[in-house]
Amino acid sequence: MSNARLRPDAAHPGPVSAGAVASVSSAAAGTAQALRAEIRAGRLSAPTSGLAPGCLQANLMILPADVAGDFLLYCTRNPKPCPLLAVSEAGDPRLPALGQDIDVRSDLPGYRVFRDGTQTDSRTDIAELWREDLVSFAIGCSFSFEGALQRSGIALRNVDAGRNVPMYVTSLETCPAGPFGGPLVVSMRSFAPADAIRAIVLSERYPLAHGAPVHIGEPAAIGIADLAKPDFGDPPAMAAGDIPVFWACGVTPQVAIARARPELAVAHEPGRMLVTDLPADGPV
Amino acid sequence: MSNARLRPDAAHPGPVSAGAVASVSSAAAGTAQALRAEIRAGRLSAPTSGLAPGCLQANLMILPADVAGDFLLYCTRNPKPCPLLAVSEAGDPRLPALGQDIDVRSDLPGYRVFRDGTQTDSRTDIAELWREDLVSFAIGCSFSFEGALQRSGIALRNVDAGRNVPMYVTSLETCPAGPFGGPLVVSMRSFAPADAIRAIVLSERYPLAHGAPVHIGEPAAIGIADLAKPDFGDPPAMAAGDIPVFWACGVTPQVAIARARPELAVAHEPGRMLVTDLPADGPV
Repeated sequence: MSNARLRPDAAHPGPVSAGAVASVSSAAAGTAQALRAEIRAGRLSAPTSGLAPGCLQANLMILPADVAGDFLLYCTRNPKPCPLLAVSEAGDPRLPALGQDIDVRSDLPGYRVFRDGTQTDSRTDIAELWREDLVSFAIGCSFSFEGALQRSGIALRNVDAGRNVPMYVTSLETCPAGPFGGPLVVSMRSFAPADAIRAIVLSERYPLAHGAPVHIGEPAAIGIADLAKPDFGDPPAMAAGDIPVFWACGVTPQVAIARARPELAVAHEPGRMLVTDLPADGPV
Repeated sequence: MSNARLRPDAAHPGPVSAGAVASVSSAAAGTAQALRAEIRAGRLSAPTSGLAPGCLQANLMILPADVAGDFLLYCTRNPKPCPLLAVSEAGDPRLPALGQDIDVRSDLPGYRVFRDGTQTDSRTDIAELWREDLVSFAIGCSFSFEGALQRSGIALRNVDAGRNVPMYVTSLETCPAGPFGGPLVVSMRSFAPADAIRAIVLSERYPLAHGAPVHIGEPAAIGIADLAKPDFGDPPAMAAGDIPVFWACGVTPQVAIARARPELAVAHEPGRMLVTDLPADGPV
């Protein structure tokens, strides 16, 4: 299949500015397509949070076919940290179920390249790395349920503080598959108790955005010694009387990659997601 | 309307034994009708928990018409402690929406009579007290969501310990209506944190059984000084690592009655509920 067919920039209507994209409020797939066109053309490399509102965003993991089967099994066995949205054919950089024009080699604002489980490179395009044995996994992210919380009037402390969400490696083990396994990583958001209850109810409605939390209350119960010292992200912003709530996190597969040490793996840069044509709130 | 028409015992098929009633596993309305016939005939005065499985049970409050309008408004303004299932016409002891043969004067195993807000009497039948100005309110109870939790494999500590659920007067105020008002009363059930999350998700699906909890975690945040000293019910049975979860409680209207001091009020004896023909799990 020709590269020209997979990178059909010329077939798109005239490029729109990033500003124009961000101002589109419709949840229509056209919004996501226009945003991907901007990213594909190299005109947008910022985090995708808040862009193409109403469109489902996804984590990306690209692996060689020889470990892709085990990774598929790992995701299947651990649906809370790794809710699968779509899996490509080997060598095919498209994910048509998530958007007819998606090319995973160019349509995300940033990529992390891992060799033998260690990050070696950051890129904005991975066309040069593409191989006929690569398989792409699109995995749900937390944006959908965070949007639902915010529309429900529930404040997200880290968003209000302009910080990334804090993430922690826990003492909870994922269910292994082949070389993939290791600890569950969680993100933490804290709320007044009544809002924590609403956040649980709302997030449960988004199983492809990690669903209901895995823990609430005492951090030590899941092996977190100090909330102020997250393993990833920024320290939490908590209000007096807040109760911490912990969700399974999409960083978990990156920790599994570090353990499995595949010769090549490519993931999105955190916060720079694959923006899909699917509605963020649609039934799944 | 004749008493004979409202107490149609003779029209029922032959009476069944209490044992036979308890052994019926169908959720069919016939089960509830048979159970009510036993109660009406004076052959059953035990708590109704676990009887007529699958049938919705209800709290009862009977008030004179001159305060019934304010109590209706109180329930409407406080749907979590007082989820209204049905309201009778003044003077009519039937609640046909909940069961064609229901007579609130005889169909509950026990009644509490309040004069000027203070309990003065316990009875198994209130036919002698009936007046043409009395209005009956059927209010949802927690049995529906407790059943859903148990079917989901979530242990109820108090049930396993053979204790009544602990209930507490909180520092949260209900929304007043006329003479009715006062503190919210909550019931507390404690769980391992992961089960607490599931209990929140499940109970939210039962808005007529008090719905999602109102608080989780620190008791002092809602004015509870000592969990070991409930205002009603039995002290809690908690396991190590449990987190307390607090639901709005159907005892709240009885506290509102004590404050409003109507000249007459009749409520069910705690645990001795009105068993209705409606399915406990049905959409509402």
